[in-house]
Amino acid sequence: MSTKQQFVVNKAGRRVPTVVNGREQIPYQGVAVYAPKGVKHGPAIRSCNEYPEDGDKRVRDIKTALEKCGLRDGMVISTHHHLRNGDRVAVTALQAAAELGAKDLVWFPSASFPCHEPVIGLMQQGAVHHIEGSMNGPLGEFCSRGQMRGLGVLRSHGGRWQAIQDGEVKIDIAVIAAPTADPFGNADGSHGPSACGSLGFALADSMYAERVIVVTDNLVPFPCIPWQIQGNNVDCVVEVDSIGDPSQIVSGTTQVTRSPDRLLIAEYVARFIRDAGIMREGFSFQAGAGGIALAFVDHLKDMMKSAGIRARFVRGGSTRYLVDLLHDGLTDYILDGQTFDLTGVESIGSEPRHVATSPFTSYNFHGKGNFASMVDAVVLGATEVDLSFNANVVTHSDGLLLHGIGGWQNCLSAGCTILALPSFRDRIPVVVEEVTTISGPGELIDVVVCERGVAVNPRRKDLLAALRHSDLPLRTISNIKDEVEAILGGKPRRPTLTDRPVAVVKWVDGTLLDTVWQTPL
Amino acid sequence: MSTKQQFVVNKAGRRVPTVVNGREQIPYQGVAVYAPKGVKHGPAIRSCNEYPEDGDKRVRDIKTALEKCGLRDGMVISTHHHLRNGDRVAVTALQAAAELGAKDLVWFPSASFPCHEPVIGLMQQGAVHHIEGSMNGPLGEFCSRGQMRGLGVLRSHGGRWQAIQDGEVKIDIAVIAAPTADPFGNADGSHGPSACGSLGFALADSMYAERVIVVTDNLVPFPCIPWQIQGNNVDCVVEVDSIGDPSQIVSGTTQVTRSPDRLLIAEYVARFIRDAGIMREGFSFQAGAGGIALAFVDHLKDMMKSAGIRARFVRGGSTRYLVDLLHDGLTDYILDGQTFDLTGVESIGSEPRHVATSPFTSYNFHGKGNFASMVDAVVLGATEVDLSFNANVVTHSDGLLLHGIGGWQNCLSAGCTILALPSFRDRIPVVVEEVTTISGPGELIDVVVCERGVAVNPRRKDLLAALRHSDLPLRTISNIKDEVEAILGGKPRRPTLTDRPVAVVKWVDGTLLDTVWQTPL
Repeated sequence: MSTKQQFVVNKAGRRVPTVVNGREQIPYQGVAVYAPKGVKHGPAIRSCNEYPEDGDKRVRDIKTALEKCGLRDGMVISTHHHLRNGDRVAVTALQAAAELGAKDLVWFPSASFPCHEPVIGLMQQGAVHHIEGSMNGPLGEFCSRGQMRGLGVLRSHGGRWQAIQDGEVKIDIAVIAAPTADPFGNADGSHGPSACGSLGFALADSMYAERVIVVTDNLVPFPCIPWQIQGNNVDCVVEVDSIGDPSQIVSGTTQVTRSPDRLLIAEYVARFIRDAGIMREGFSFQAGAGGIALAFVDHLKDMMKSAGIRARFVRGGSTRYLVDLLHDGLTDYILDGQTFDLTGVESIGSEPRHVATSPFTSYNFHGKGNFASMVDAVVLGATEVDLSFNANVVTHSDGLLLHGIGGWQNCLSAGCTILALPSFRDRIPVVVEEVTTISGPGELIDVVVCERGVAVNPRRKDLLAALRHSDLPLRTISNIKDEVEAILGGKPRRPTLTDRPVAVVKWVDGTLLDTVWQTPL
Repeated sequence: MSTKQQFVVNKAGRRVPTVVNGREQIPYQGVAVYAPKGVKHGPAIRSCNEYPEDGDKRVRDIKTALEKCGLRDGMVISTHHHLRNGDRVAVTALQAAAELGAKDLVWFPSASFPCHEPVIGLMQQGAVHHIEGSMNGPLGEFCSRGQMRGLGVLRSHGGRWQAIQDGEVKIDIAVIAAPTADPFGNADGSHGPSACGSLGFALADSMYAERVIVVTDNLVPFPCIPWQIQGNNVDCVVEVDSIGDPSQIVSGTTQVTRSPDRLLIAEYVARFIRDAGIMREGFSFQAGAGGIALAFVDHLKDMMKSAGIRARFVRGGSTRYLVDLLHDGLTDYILDGQTFDLTGVESIGSEPRHVATSPFTSYNFHGKGNFASMVDAVVLGATEVDLSFNANVVTHSDGLLLHGIGGWQNCLSAGCTILALPSFRDRIPVVVEEVTTISGPGELIDVVVCERGVAVNPRRKDLLAALRHSDLPLRTISNIKDEVEAILGGKPRRPTLTDRPVAVVKWVDGTLLDTVWQTPL
């Protein structure tokens, strides 16, 4: 970044850089305006001549695999985050690359977790140049403080697929941690001591990377059935003692919230879905694994039972709450992107109606449609939401980058997008005048539900009409904001940020939606 | 083909054209010599903007779908052959294109059957320029007689994937007949009134074609589970009364041969696999659905049972004989490319250990390995085999092109390739001095088993050593040939062919292995 950074103001009114990490950018043009050009990325054609006839692609260790894959300075190394905060493979692979002398690598995870904090050291010593991908916790703060070379690039799960598919990010070596694999490289996540459920986040990497290394602690004889990663895309297989800490990969059990405020929010959300007429025979919904979302599912389940209504499908992140719906006959299918607890993992590994999906089927905006827009209602969180219904999921009100986007942006295309959140947290308002960072445009956010009431986006006259006989506490968003400010004793202080960008937020179509600015130390 | 055709002699000693249908060719360079260059084909990037948010891609009929997909003269239209001789979709689609006025289309089926004979009329009227793909029966004869514009291009199943993946054949519109589909285009073959089992032959088409039309007679609400074709690759869905004649799609039941000679061959094959030490715990094999192959499976099953030996996997084309192995615990898995009888279809639709594969996983030579080379033994047929163990599966001894290659070439990479065939048919020798057309190089063919004995390729000294205590009637191939000629009263007449090529045979790596020459009327 030696040349001076240029900026433009995009359609969301936000100032975004024209060039990011040496690559020209397209500013955000509106929710569904930008028309992509060109063709999908094609990695080099390989030949069976180069691979063992007996299909045994095992090599001694990750270093050997990286050397065999032609590790060089500046390469893009990708990993997936299905092992969440239990992952032992990403850091091991990057450290191995550093020990081999590699410099200026780009780490391209599907998400990062606190367990990946050692990558800070690799960035400080020069082995890793920067991270393209979500940065939670300590990595996010490192980036926020302006200590990372290069800009962080935050993408949704679907946006990551889009960027790989469209050739925006060319992965040189994908390192895929696999709870089960065979020597040919077929791999799956639903079985083994480090089972994590779906491996869908690694699928694009396996298809589009030049070289692919599968790392497993549960090698089975060919064929590994089922396989979600196809060995025909894999170069090397490495056997290790452990790919992760099972206690950090999936929760033993996920828990609903006990906070009375949050239980109230969950109840409002369920009543909203019923009263707005979304809960009807054959409907569909998606909810995450947060405490409010789980409590909402429990409420909705009771309402579905008493109304005799069944869903056609529900979308995970799956937990035992969704698995219960399946077992109780309240949904035909779970279409699952990731698996959050042991019940979910057990279910996806044994139940044909619990189906692993990928960001391609679910979220990729540069496909011929995707599942996200076919979901009737989605329940999401946010760190901030503002009077235009714009919402923020990546920064806190102090400007610090502390969260990834996940599938959040992609889910906004659902029939009804519901933000379920407390109106303030730790005396910091969540409902604000203008969000610090726009992660999602307000025109896609239909309802904000907090403990003080339900604010429907005025654009959704149909919802307002449907709710006219509901006894839900309907309010305007500005009315809620005013009440929050009165409680907290005035308007919140705006964060003091420098004029130096540290990361950018991509929209689902690859255009630049907003900039994250440096937070001074 | 207005310019004069040039030829070169390739590494198999065969004269092949330098240009085929306007595209420069690479002559065959040996079994595993040619190193491909370049990158995999990328179709145009699409956007969700262009597709309905509710995922409903249904259009009224095939004509509307073709128009929506931008049908133009000269386009490449692909279909799959999982409906075999019961297919009603390919001809309907090509006729619809003709009625819309399209000229000079290239039809690119994964195989053609006698039910596709009406395409001859479409070629005569100019709507279809030529067929790239296997031509059985009447279409093969039409081509053989020199009546087709353009050259036929015969590829194996794996070679077809390779050609699509490598961008040798760019599919403009893929028309995919689907026994079950949803309005989004997710599709599967294992259920519905026209169930055919796997849809793997259509997978490359769905991934690489510019436009994809799914045609179904069994529309289910989203999501169609399981899906083998992903709706995210599909442009339009067309509902029709019937995609095919079920009685011609799969056999009610497949039958072993009753010919005493062929039963003897089947027994020799099973004894060979046992005596050569191939039948050992955890081994694998592949056999087709012909009468000899089925009888061989029955023999081998008895031998496995009495020796207490289990296979790790068997490869289909599946039939009830393979399904029996699975149910009897004699194999852990069936890895299935296509499904030949009702028992096979029932099994692939309900049994998780009966797994649908695709030509990518099984056969594509331009992948990072494939399954075919990991199979311990494969039992195949041929129309001719010669003293160099070269074999022919596409032409008859009279030179007429009457068969496709199927997966035959791809299977030759198995640990042991066994040709099981009668030494002559209808007083025409099968074991000959030199094959009419080389479909597979002799160095990959390890054993010829006929009713007169077992000829091991002298290159396979290991097999000869393993068999030294066997009581199988081991003979040389030339000894068998001499006996056949003595029985038939002399050497066979060589066919009289013109010097005009009508089709070419591709090797698995896309190079030109041989030429099929015109048979005079």
